[in-house]
Amino acid sequence: MDERGAIERLRTIATHSAARGLIDDAAVLDGWVLTHDSIAEGVHYLPGDPAESVGWKLVAVNLSDLAAKGATPVAALLSLTLTSDDGWEAGFLDGVEQACTKFDLALVGGDTIALPPGAPRVLGLTAIGKAGAATPSRGGGRPGDRLWLIGTLGDSAAGLAELRDDPAASGPLIEAYRRPQPLLEAGAALAPDATAMMDVSDGLLLDLSRLIAASGCGAEVDLNALPLSITFIARRGDDRSARLFAATGGDDYALLVALPAEVDPNLTLCLPSAPSIACIGSLVAGAALSLTDDDGPVPLPEHLGHEHRAF
Amino acid sequence: MDERGAIERLRTIATHSAARGLIDDAAVLDGWVLTHDSIAEGVHYLPGDPAESVGWKLVAVNLSDLAAKGATPVAALLSLTLTSDDGWEAGFLDGVEQACTKFDLALVGGDTIALPPGAPRVLGLTAIGKAGAATPSRGGGRPGDRLWLIGTLGDSAAGLAELRDDPAASGPLIEAYRRPQPLLEAGAALAPDATAMMDVSDGLLLDLSRLIAASGCGAEVDLNALPLSITFIARRGDDRSARLFAATGGDDYALLVALPAEVDPNLTLCLPSAPSIACIGSLVAGAALSLTDDDGPVPLPEHLGHEHRAF
Repeated sequence: MDERGAIERLRTIATHSAARGLIDDAAVLDGWVLTHDSIAEGVHYLPGDPAESVGWKLVAVNLSDLAAKGATPVAALLSLTLTSDDGWEAGFLDGVEQACTKFDLALVGGDTIALPPGAPRVLGLTAIGKAGAATPSRGGGRPGDRLWLIGTLGDSAAGLAELRDDPAASGPLIEAYRRPQPLLEAGAALAPDATAMMDVSDGLLLDLSRLIAASGCGAEVDLNALPLSITFIARRGDDRSARLFAATGGDDYALLVALPAEVDPNLTLCLPSAPSIACIGSLVAGAALSLTDDDGPVPLPEHLGHEHRAF
Repeated sequence: MDERGAIERLRTIATHSAARGLIDDAAVLDGWVLTHDSIAEGVHYLPGDPAESVGWKLVAVNLSDLAAKGATPVAALLSLTLTSDDGWEAGFLDGVEQACTKFDLALVGGDTIALPPGAPRVLGLTAIGKAGAATPSRGGGRPGDRLWLIGTLGDSAAGLAELRDDPAASGPLIEAYRRPQPLLEAGAALAPDATAMMDVSDGLLLDLSRLIAASGCGAEVDLNALPLSITFIARRGDDRSARLFAATGGDDYALLVALPAEVDPNLTLCLPSAPSIACIGSLVAGAALSLTDDDGPVPLPEHLGHEHRAF
């Protein structure tokens, strides 16, 4: 069963309003925001990634879902698979603890299970957050809203590409891949104004295509407006090809937010360490996603991102 | 890392009161009871088990944790691994839906992930329940309390043994293994009186040893008082060996409850379809678990149950 088929079937089961039709990465129940993301060895992380970074990342990707709903982290349940490799699990739990401490998340339960010998690890976390004044879904965007991106794109995918070439590579791009930072303050600050918000986990273009499908509108994106880090540009350039790489790479954990035209997040986000803020386009009538750059229209790439993650 | 080591380390992270020191199978947060259990192919179910029954069982084992806290099921998040075997996942989701419908549990979210080719499936569920008037932990038992068991023991383990001999076997013992029934009404009815309660998932003797460790007391159990089904006895007899098998087999999802001596659950459990109710012994001073039958003291078996499940 592919992801699309599974989600179609799941929608016929998940009919409660808290499920929001499974178009979000999170459920909203009585003032709580609930999300669960699992990661598998060899799929969501490299077997050679430090165990500590895997623990950090598992927590961070779940908190990124809470950030996109403007929620404040409260508690988590961890699903841990045990193997005979003591050192790995000790490191993994160190990383979980670092992230829980950093983001004030209380680990309150979960389970530990054995796997058959040689099976790849599968690690899961359920994160529970307190809803803020507003809990934007993916589905409230309207033609005329401007699309903003908080954080940069492509760093993580560039880091992963480096690691595939050289497992011993290091530097800020590898850090971006291994230790994403959930944009919790930004999400909470933007939620009251956002008509739609989500985190970019599978690639901007794929995630945006989901946002416009849920919102029932189209989008126009200026490829040249995509926020790229200095490190990314130094390594991969900023031509059309590099920008398409950044727009489809995934694992960014940036926030994609639709805001009414009169709202300027540069004024909203007076944060101690404000992330990059960029207007990348707008929502339009219709259903199409169109890209342009200085040379005119840009054909959509065949793959908009990675189809494997959360419902 | 073994389960004990992992849980010791997790306890140093899970310091929030909602975690209850990780001595329970569930966390208690602001009137909600939260639990997560994962199951792995080849560990918690047989590769030949019907997919539908695996979906049912995943939901049921989580709801059994809620039952043991006297909570009412509300919502769940599902972690689903996708493979290319369409039929399997369709059947699995049918079973999830049957259990959600039966127990009035709303599926509200989760995630779908790919696994590397050939990897055993790992399936997880987070279940969220509304706490009742009381939420008994494992740790409140006191010397003098009587120990009661709601439901029967050994059916599931006997069914699993039959399946190991003959994968095509069928009958009520196999059903007990594949389609456990969480004792939600019984749990809710007993919770206000219970000084300690838990479900029996890993084997009565192992789970009871956890209850007395958490409660800081010992226990005396009459092996002859253990409730066995007619089917179990017909298949395996009811001698000491059969009773020790039932006391250590696991996957029972019966409820083990400590009640003050003056409370008789036969009066509390006026349920439409009341499960078996048996007084199996009592809590005593000290820290030892002792077994007796008509022939006198029974040495504790080497393995009290299965050490692989929830923290």
